Amino acid sequence: MRQSKLFTKTRKEAPRDEISKNASLLIRAGFIHKEMAGVYSYLPLGWRVIQKLKTVIEEEMAKLGSQEILMSTLQNKEIWERTNRWDDEEVDVWFKSTFKNGSEVGFGWSHEEPIGEMMKSHISSYQNLPIQVHQFQNKLRNEVRAKSGIIRCREFIMKDMYCFALTAEDNLEFYNKTTEAYLEVFRRVGLGDITYVTSASGGVFTDKFSHEFQTICEAGEDTIYITDESKKKAVNEEMADKKSEGKKAVEVGNIFNFGTKKSEELGLYVTDGDGEKKPVFLSSYGIGVTRLMGTVVEVLSDDNGIVWPRKIAPFQVHLLSLSEKTRNLADAVYENLVSNDIEVLYDDRDLRAGEKFADADLMGIPTRVVIGEKAIASKTLEVKDRASGETRELTIEHLIKELMG
Amino acid sequence: MRQSKLFTKTRKEAPRDEISKNASLLIRAGFIHKEMAGVYSYLPLGWRVIQKLKTVIEEEMAKLGSQEILMSTLQNKEIWERTNRWDDEEVDVWFKSTFKNGSEVGFGWSHEEPIGEMMKSHISSYQNLPIQVHQFQNKLRNEVRAKSGIIRCREFIMKDMYCFALTAEDNLEFYNKTTEAYLEVFRRVGLGDITYVTSASGGVFTDKFSHEFQTICEAGEDTIYITDESKKKAVNEEMADKKSEGKKAVEVGNIFNFGTKKSEELGLYVTDGDGEKKPVFLSSYGIGVTRLMGTVVEVLSDDNGIVWPRKIAPFQVHLLSLSEKTRNLADAVYENLVSNDIEVLYDDRDLRAGEKFADADLMGIPTRVVIGEKAIASKTLEVKDRASGETRELTIEHLIKELMG
Repeated sequence: MRQSKLFTKTRKEAPRDEISKNASLLIRAGFIHKEMAGVYSYLPLGWRVIQKLKTVIEEEMAKLGSQEILMSTLQNKEIWERTNRWDDEEVDVWFKSTFKNGSEVGFGWSHEEPIGEMMKSHISSYQNLPIQVHQFQNKLRNEVRAKSGIIRCREFIMKDMYCFALTAEDNLEFYNKTTEAYLEVFRRVGLGDITYVTSASGGVFTDKFSHEFQTICEAGEDTIYITDESKKKAVNEEMADKKSEGKKAVEVGNIFNFGTKKSEELGLYVTDGDGEKKPVFLSSYGIGVTRLMGTVVEVLSDDNGIVWPRKIAPFQVHLLSLSEKTRNLADAVYENLVSNDIEVLYDDRDLRAGEKFADADLMGIPTRVVIGEKAIASKTLEVKDRASGETRELTIEHLIKELMG
Repeated sequence: MRQSKLFTKTRKEAPRDEISKNASLLIRAGFIHKEMAGVYSYLPLGWRVIQKLKTVIEEEMAKLGSQEILMSTLQNKEIWERTNRWDDEEVDVWFKSTFKNGSEVGFGWSHEEPIGEMMKSHISSYQNLPIQVHQFQNKLRNEVRAKSGIIRCREFIMKDMYCFALTAEDNLEFYNKTTEAYLEVFRRVGLGDITYVTSASGGVFTDKFSHEFQTICEAGEDTIYITDESKKKAVNEEMADKKSEGKKAVEVGNIFNFGTKKSEELGLYVTDGDGEKKPVFLSSYGIGVTRLMGTVVEVLSDDNGIVWPRKIAPFQVHLLSLSEKTRNLADAVYENLVSNDIEVLYDDRDLRAGEKFADADLMGIPTRVVIGEKAIASKTLEVKDRASGETRELTIEHLIKELMG
């Protein structure tokens, strides 16, 4: 894409009321727009990152055999009353409104209840199980405080998955497989080294066991205690022994096991092989997609701006043409890269080199290719790695080979 | 995909409270789930149709040079007050709620105001214009009545696009280009012959001119009067002369021109070539994605069920294995089709042939391939076209060639 066509502009300062590092950088670089405290919109660059994150997650969900759906945001009061989670005393993050006829409606902060209810139309026999479904859905939560940028929002995109199983063993088997799939997601988006599986209590979601995936991050609201570095295991505060050293962390994913409790409350039963009625085992699995984006920005950025891992970068190459004289060569390099299906943001704007360098650093695209006047004679490109700062002179053929490799 | 793994089941009857044909068929075929009146969730088959529709629309938006974003559902009261559209007396479809601090928040029923406000951070000079942005976004509207299935919902997916231009001429040029792009969308999804560009008044959106795209459909809530069949032009009731014959139609898309009024209210100005401050011309463009899906079902279904146009079908081929003896051959055909990147739903369930035929008709996948016992000897496949009912005997090679052609 030609940067002259990209409508977003970078800015030197974030809005005064934005105190989080992730949102400040993302706003300055033109990836997101702040609507209100805890509410952000996603601009073209930010939306591209979200799409990349969704692709990584979707690939891992497909390997698990999960089927994609989309549940509604508007939710039925009656269903949540059956599990005693409608009352604001029980769940304190509801947004609620009323229909024209005066009856109340809720806005989805989670989807166990509506998905369990929906499954009653499709599950009747043990032969239907196990089933896994997931969605990328916009959650709305009426949080008291929202000061962590896109790490804790009042509106955010979550990938939530649900497993319906006949037995505790089947449920546990999927629970374990998903733990591995989630770790693979965090590895692929560049957070593998600093993300831990953490045993935790279930909070509002469950009275049974649960796990979190916690990424070490100064801006995190949680504290974890690493118990096994090689196996990436940790525990939360309640479960820590006194000698361990706590680290701040962000909960990037979680797993809850509801056992059969929720199915009994909702009336989700199947007939087993002996003709007996059995409540279905339910577990739920979440990755905060926008939160994950914010966490990547928090932990991988440097003094000059964002540093995107290649897998989720909005573009692979940021191509900079430094003057009017280099435009023809830069145009040719751009066309060459694009014709090889390499995603390029081409800074063809009429701006000083220094401004282009500063914008490129701020925006964090992994490979920067600079076309200065000496490139016209040398036939080589100045290629800089955003993460390491390493600069090399490469031919266009070499660069393409490396990027496609 | 193997149908034995698909969690949704077809059903003989729709819920008793569902009076619309589109939702009845989609629920019976397992494409959608009814949450409440006017609120539906999208199950794997339905979600695949939505993805196909989004792909068609996105391709046409990309040709227009529009950039994709995602705006928030939670909306700022103050922005809407500036254009006098917060008050329920002015806009009667708001869902509203309150934050914990007692201040009000709205849920997005449209996005002109927030997008105009956001643009103030990115537009300052005439050189930044024109800009087009679009999103696929979940709109929430507190409708009094919702009896048309997914054609009029309280929650629905819309592709909304916005054009920001320096002059009335630039604005009109994009307006005209988009009209063509929209007609191309409707052609590609199978509604070209019965969709008309209709001149209409602007309603709540604008006091200037506007157009609608209306698809002839008995279940439609509007009436249009065709004025030029060959150019696919029509007018609405207000503008019709008395001799024309009215036809029921569904509004599948619309275009509004706000002129500079909204920019003046929001404070969206640019500096022109002479250094003068000018308000930006704004127009907005919508296609109801889920409504479009409902309209396709309404107008293209027959007595046996849904008939999907190939471009938006959840799968291209519905492969039916009729008995245990044909399973090996059917497995081989399935693998062959899938290895050629053809999307196949493979009915490998242990059910009677009649049930499989009925389900295939109901679900509406364009090409049905039946593997009966005679196929084992004949080496040919019974291939039936869902729309025409035409049946042919084809070799697998012939079938693949046709589907890939």
